[in-house]
Amino acid sequence: MKKILILGAGRSSSSLIEYLLEEAKKHDYEVTVADTLLESAEQKTKKNPYARPILLDITDEVKTHAEIQRADLVISMLPAFLHPAIAKQCVKLKKHMVTASYVSQEMKDLNEEAKKARIILMNEAGLDPGIDHASAMKIIHQIKAKGGKLTAFKSFTGGLIAPESDDNPWGYKFTWNPRNVVLAGQGAARYIENGKYAFIPYHKLFTRTEKIRFDELGDFEGYANRDSLSYRSVYEIEDIPTLLRGTLRKAGYCEAWNVFVQLGMTDDTYTIPESEKLTVKELVESFLPHAEGDVKNRLAGYLGIHLEGEIMEKLEWLGLFDDTKLNVKNASPALLLQTLLESKWSLKVNDIDMIVMQHQFEYDINGTPHKLLSSLIVKGDDNIHTAMAKTVGLPVGIITKLILEDKIKLKGVQTPTVEEIYEPLLKELETLGIRFKEKEG
Amino acid sequence: MKKILILGAGRSSSSLIEYLLEEAKKHDYEVTVADTLLESAEQKTKKNPYARPILLDITDEVKTHAEIQRADLVISMLPAFLHPAIAKQCVKLKKHMVTASYVSQEMKDLNEEAKKARIILMNEAGLDPGIDHASAMKIIHQIKAKGGKLTAFKSFTGGLIAPESDDNPWGYKFTWNPRNVVLAGQGAARYIENGKYAFIPYHKLFTRTEKIRFDELGDFEGYANRDSLSYRSVYEIEDIPTLLRGTLRKAGYCEAWNVFVQLGMTDDTYTIPESEKLTVKELVESFLPHAEGDVKNRLAGYLGIHLEGEIMEKLEWLGLFDDTKLNVKNASPALLLQTLLESKWSLKVNDIDMIVMQHQFEYDINGTPHKLLSSLIVKGDDNIHTAMAKTVGLPVGIITKLILEDKIKLKGVQTPTVEEIYEPLLKELETLGIRFKEKEG
Repeated sequence: MKKILILGAGRSSSSLIEYLLEEAKKHDYEVTVADTLLESAEQKTKKNPYARPILLDITDEVKTHAEIQRADLVISMLPAFLHPAIAKQCVKLKKHMVTASYVSQEMKDLNEEAKKARIILMNEAGLDPGIDHASAMKIIHQIKAKGGKLTAFKSFTGGLIAPESDDNPWGYKFTWNPRNVVLAGQGAARYIENGKYAFIPYHKLFTRTEKIRFDELGDFEGYANRDSLSYRSVYEIEDIPTLLRGTLRKAGYCEAWNVFVQLGMTDDTYTIPESEKLTVKELVESFLPHAEGDVKNRLAGYLGIHLEGEIMEKLEWLGLFDDTKLNVKNASPALLLQTLLESKWSLKVNDIDMIVMQHQFEYDINGTPHKLLSSLIVKGDDNIHTAMAKTVGLPVGIITKLILEDKIKLKGVQTPTVEEIYEPLLKELETLGIRFKEKEG
Repeated sequence: MKKILILGAGRSSSSLIEYLLEEAKKHDYEVTVADTLLESAEQKTKKNPYARPILLDITDEVKTHAEIQRADLVISMLPAFLHPAIAKQCVKLKKHMVTASYVSQEMKDLNEEAKKARIILMNEAGLDPGIDHASAMKIIHQIKAKGGKLTAFKSFTGGLIAPESDDNPWGYKFTWNPRNVVLAGQGAARYIENGKYAFIPYHKLFTRTEKIRFDELGDFEGYANRDSLSYRSVYEIEDIPTLLRGTLRKAGYCEAWNVFVQLGMTDDTYTIPESEKLTVKELVESFLPHAEGDVKNRLAGYLGIHLEGEIMEKLEWLGLFDDTKLNVKNASPALLLQTLLESKWSLKVNDIDMIVMQHQFEYDINGTPHKLLSSLIVKGDDNIHTAMAKTVGLPVGIITKLILEDKIKLKGVQTPTVEEIYEPLLKELETLGIRFKEKEG
């Protein structure tokens, strides 16, 4: 009987745990679900006979050590900064490990030891990073196999609200960490276009978007992620003239979000004195040049926004000119904005989320240019089996099974950029409804 | 015979050393000038009989200790981060200390010990901070003594080129640390206006300037410094409705500088790959949206700049669209910009610098509003006795003398915000040509 230890039974673990309990029936796994709240672990495992919910605080080193010792494979759904400590124990105790987080330098440094211990330290096994790498590499390898030369690769991902639950003018609700959404894009974006490096400072980022179309869903817009350049080596396309990774929002979102950026309301580097006393309108006013008159009119004049346009409609819908107090002490502008947004952009019980991803390839074969679009749309089933939980949890679960069933024999620090991993992963994801649609031209 | 130890014989020490050697004749001082380059110390002291130039590396703890032990008062003209270590030794050895730098928390923490040792740790004894505090506090105390209530205080300072040496369209050359000029203003500016907190993000800072007039010199513009709010307690004006400190540039500078801010060229947080290969024009292009066509036209279109206007004239004068290589490896955008500017904005041998400062007060007496302007203009005598060297060095020298002559009896950590210091300081500065002009209304 193979034993799996899952650390962390948070929201994003639900689909992962269900998948592995289903597989446990077929392969006779024991699935230990460990959380600092026993109730959480019990709720997620529903008295399943293959499940073993336990209380575990990973600062309890003795118990953590004993649980890792007991397992064949450890899945860490904990915050990424905790992974290296777990990975070190896995190497020492010769246990496989799977995470959905980016490979850190500390993780990379364990590569040789992990190989010696004959174990795999599998990272980036979720959605982004995860499914993005797998699906991109599969096509990159196919193009190369046909003798094609890649000239451009752009890839965009977004965690959004499904159209059926989209009932506000922003086309957005928080389906993911609100703080990360407020701070998204800070620091300069760096990419390469037509062989030239390109840089976008944060205050220009949301004005320099690309229109991205999904046939089934309509228009979205993508803004550049901070670091696209390092993916030249990740995807083994060092000489590609154009490479950009970006984030998707519903069309119209970025020009309205840019208002907060221009005002300075996404700044998290200082606290506002007496922030608990401010109303939303006063907060906005503190970023405007001093003048008499209506705050809405002054904002419109300062940033050149039409009073009756779509941007202003979005801002008014948020209550940006209301006398509501935000009531947060020692808050940064970003935290006050987050507080406002959380009161407006929270999911309702029956809301359905959605993941959208699109890869755009351009390549030449024998001098003939080709284009290929590969698009993924995944909607949540309900508020437990969200699109986010499925697209992060299912690849982690599938890869875990592939390792335990010896279908993935690789050792050391790995990501799903290699055929031995992406091929069976993408195949099984398709059977679970996570399927890319390709389109030429 | 009183013994003074000056640590650091850099450019800003010249006027200080000359002043103290002049006073040495009258008061019989020994002035030890210590530098890591003996030649520097010797050049600055010109075989003056009261001078003792020495070689001293302050990492040599034994020798440094011996020199502090030998002195009655230590002046540190070293970089500010080195002051606390020197101050601790001064406290231990019961020696007075004077610096022109802001009081750090580490320095503050020595207050009680310094009082016990019966010594003064005198800080902020230069221009800004220094003369600004002294001159502002004198007027604030005068207004309070008349029963006035301060309603607004704005204060602006600039280190600039004198009109007679101003031969470029920017009205600017580097008279001070170029790196600090390139990075100036980063981080949000925070102040208070009409009783309301106000915040300006960096990317709006150079568009939100105030016009500042000096009768003798014409128009300047001031942009807000990062922190004005803390001066409410420094100046004991906690309830003032309007308080702003800012930096002065020649009129027209800020709208042109804003081009670099908008492009992202002042960013020092990342390095540009293969930066040594870039020409100036290619550097500019890397911040523009991808398109065909002339870089100058694209820049003008992107930022809405007139092709024949004053902003473009300034940019062209800098050679911003030239094919000149910058030749700096692993450079940030800010470092590349600095490299370009240093090739254009360097002082010529006979260039004269200039310090401008203006305090603007508004106050009520018995319900009647009053206004008061207090302005300072100091020009350099030559390229040694620069305005910067005089306005930083002379107050340090004067305060040093006042301490040694027991005219300043205060102990502990001090700044020139108290009458016992600012009164004799401003009086002697006037005799040396550093004199504020006041104007009512």
